[in-house]
Amino acid sequence: MSKLPNITTDFPAWYQEVLYSAELVDQPPVRGAMVIRPYGYAIWEQIKGRLDERIKATGHQNAAFPLLIPESFLKKEAKHVEGFAPEVAVVTRAGGKELEEPLVIRPTSETIVHCMFARWIASWRDLPLKINQWANVVRWEMRPRAFLRTTEFFWQEGHTAHETRDEAVKEVHGMLREYLDLAENYLAIPAVAGLKSPSETFPGAEKTYTFEALMQDGKALQMGTSHLLHQSFAESFGIKFQDRDGELAYPHLTSWGVTTRLVGSVVMVHGDQKGLVLPPRIAPIQVAIVPIFTKGCDKEQLLEAVRKVEASLVGQGIRVYVDDDEQKTPGNKFYHWELRGVPVRIEVGPRDLVNNQAVLATRVGEEKETVILAQLAERVPMLLDEIHSIMFTRARERRDAMWYAGAKLEEFGLKLDAEGGFWQTGWCGNQECEMLPKKYKATIRCLLPERKTSCCFGCDKESEHEVLIAKAY
Amino acid sequence: MSKLPNITTDFPAWYQEVLYSAELVDQPPVRGAMVIRPYGYAIWEQIKGRLDERIKATGHQNAAFPLLIPESFLKKEAKHVEGFAPEVAVVTRAGGKELEEPLVIRPTSETIVHCMFARWIASWRDLPLKINQWANVVRWEMRPRAFLRTTEFFWQEGHTAHETRDEAVKEVHGMLREYLDLAENYLAIPAVAGLKSPSETFPGAEKTYTFEALMQDGKALQMGTSHLLHQSFAESFGIKFQDRDGELAYPHLTSWGVTTRLVGSVVMVHGDQKGLVLPPRIAPIQVAIVPIFTKGCDKEQLLEAVRKVEASLVGQGIRVYVDDDEQKTPGNKFYHWELRGVPVRIEVGPRDLVNNQAVLATRVGEEKETVILAQLAERVPMLLDEIHSIMFTRARERRDAMWYAGAKLEEFGLKLDAEGGFWQTGWCGNQECEMLPKKYKATIRCLLPERKTSCCFGCDKESEHEVLIAKAY
Repeated sequence: MSKLPNITTDFPAWYQEVLYSAELVDQPPVRGAMVIRPYGYAIWEQIKGRLDERIKATGHQNAAFPLLIPESFLKKEAKHVEGFAPEVAVVTRAGGKELEEPLVIRPTSETIVHCMFARWIASWRDLPLKINQWANVVRWEMRPRAFLRTTEFFWQEGHTAHETRDEAVKEVHGMLREYLDLAENYLAIPAVAGLKSPSETFPGAEKTYTFEALMQDGKALQMGTSHLLHQSFAESFGIKFQDRDGELAYPHLTSWGVTTRLVGSVVMVHGDQKGLVLPPRIAPIQVAIVPIFTKGCDKEQLLEAVRKVEASLVGQGIRVYVDDDEQKTPGNKFYHWELRGVPVRIEVGPRDLVNNQAVLATRVGEEKETVILAQLAERVPMLLDEIHSIMFTRARERRDAMWYAGAKLEEFGLKLDAEGGFWQTGWCGNQECEMLPKKYKATIRCLLPERKTSCCFGCDKESEHEVLIAKAY
Repeated sequence: MSKLPNITTDFPAWYQEVLYSAELVDQPPVRGAMVIRPYGYAIWEQIKGRLDERIKATGHQNAAFPLLIPESFLKKEAKHVEGFAPEVAVVTRAGGKELEEPLVIRPTSETIVHCMFARWIASWRDLPLKINQWANVVRWEMRPRAFLRTTEFFWQEGHTAHETRDEAVKEVHGMLREYLDLAENYLAIPAVAGLKSPSETFPGAEKTYTFEALMQDGKALQMGTSHLLHQSFAESFGIKFQDRDGELAYPHLTSWGVTTRLVGSVVMVHGDQKGLVLPPRIAPIQVAIVPIFTKGCDKEQLLEAVRKVEASLVGQGIRVYVDDDEQKTPGNKFYHWELRGVPVRIEVGPRDLVNNQAVLATRVGEEKETVILAQLAERVPMLLDEIHSIMFTRARERRDAMWYAGAKLEEFGLKLDAEGGFWQTGWCGNQECEMLPKKYKATIRCLLPERKTSCCFGCDKESEHEVLIAKAY
């Protein structure tokens, strides 16, 4: 049993080690790449399953666009290529020959999707067009870190086209709300939503909305984004439609996405010294049942009782694992499932059986609870909801304790650099001031809707925007 | 309404056109690539959903391995590289620099998976290791055809490691059986399973099992494969484990996969002159409800009744679409849903409402059926099962009518070339004879378990293997 590095004093090492120890990922011998092992992939499947349901329920349809995009496509939208050209991987040889035109592996799919939109959209009757794709993309990362920055990652990218700007704006906000719901009600993460400042805006977007969360080390993580694109995309790819008045018009486009990075956020927001702490609604295993074999006990009888408990919980739609390995001690098993962040552990020993009961332990509390076997199927779903609430509240309290009001960057910059946290302050809106936090390895994470601070953090001008400044992953 | 090319006299054109008209795919401006549109992708999601369930139920776990593999990896297994080198796409430039070692886009993942297996397997206690990956792969195709041969395609690839050869053989056969179950009970396709002859065996496999189906034009389609790999893979990647006697041993490896090609098989086996005919269990829309608005009818009342029908069917887990577009005539709608292969259409007009009934039409029969509204929720699931049986029986009859017994290739070769079909005959087992069917653009599709023919189709030797010869996609 290897001990994890100290989560308080060495967060990066703790993060790295917990991912490996809990078997979420492994490192293949390819720079910047990551293998997602079954337990890590199962977390992603839970997140994906929930989000896919919501994407469909809100009227979007899944489709699949090509992995390889002609290099010339990327160049059609000037700002877009400027943003992505430095990080693409390029195929120059295929089928044993040099290619006439190199193909880039998609870093994102706006260009190829819009190229197809131009074929599918002719009239206002074809709008809105609401497409989503679950895909892998490649961006050459200089400082890879599992789940947070890897050369290849998985995501969903939504791409939509609308008749009016109002509708497009509604879509951008609607999907942002869906993401926030996912974060709060499934990942138990309190995220802050807001507009990105110009230098952090998606290449080619008019507006980028983000939702950001604070990790335990005080650094912010961009959890996902939702973009209102410039009309230039529609123009560059010739997407035109006949509007209700018979005039040709350009549709208003959006795109939005979240990635496997969300798995990393769950690890960094909730983990503790013992390992992962998984939010119940996305935990691949919600309950681990550990039969406590004692010397001379009737194993068959115990296992039969355990199987009954398992069946009653599965009947409630709960994801259960029975750890009946006789080679391991209960202590080893407790350690194993704690490291893996399983929300609830049920222990059943021969003496419990006599009393017709089981012992419940949760990953988030110290106290154990004794429950009559027949009541487990009722108690456990409630308990999972309670754990979710406890985790969300705890994460919010942690975040709020690191959410400071700042006046002048020069005053709070050193503390920000040393301790992290969200620093709420005012910004005049000028690019010069936007760049100042870099001095403390920080950036404006987002613009908040309500103005509270009167003066800019960087200069003497009046504040135009309330902003959150933080160091970020 | 464009008419489809004649399915009997111009099958390739019919296939191409039905895919576009029914909006399953579109052609992006990238050679060999394909865009899978929402309706096509929804069919794949149905197939994937069912298979994923079975893969998990049989003890496999999903994981994700990198898209990009060092070129040197592919070269570690001699036969493997020989088979795949000519068709790989190679990344030579990334992040603005030439790469020191080029990376190939995976044409299949044995090499990278086995490299990780070597890290994860140390003892017999780590076995069996049963992993599956849903992924995109790239193979540079010279003659691309939507769903059948595209440079990028989607698939699942299972990779397993076992203590004994027996267990590995069991795995290979077990997954083949799962595939056959999928074909018969979900795709309504009668497939033939058998061993591949040496020249059609997967590069690096000792044995490749295949399941093959006959398309309506008499050509065979390889629907998927299941491989028992050579020990050379374990040796090349240094996968060793301590066996129960404490000795170091190489595990026995398998791999198996099916692809988006299955969507193509459904189109080619079941389609007709009106368009797609989708098997009910994988049809994204199983029932299209068409309200028949007549002049002066109470539309609100009609729609309310239709919504009730919809709710009662959805309550039975049926996938329903209500086509209440008032701009289109019922005739247009009938055409639309027939082209898309929706198994059941329900028509409800004002007069039906007075009689408290609806009219059911199926995609596979001419007769319509009148059913009391309250009984629809009971009748429709039965009807969907009936349609499945009709489709499977029809496909089997068609196949059997094209399944011939052949003696000498020289006698049946011309007919095989002209009309296609499965030609069952004997084979001596020699490579020279194996190559003879190429003269008629045909190949040995698979070896059948029971020997019936006494003499080889090519020479005067005794037959060693009963085989099926056919032209193939």
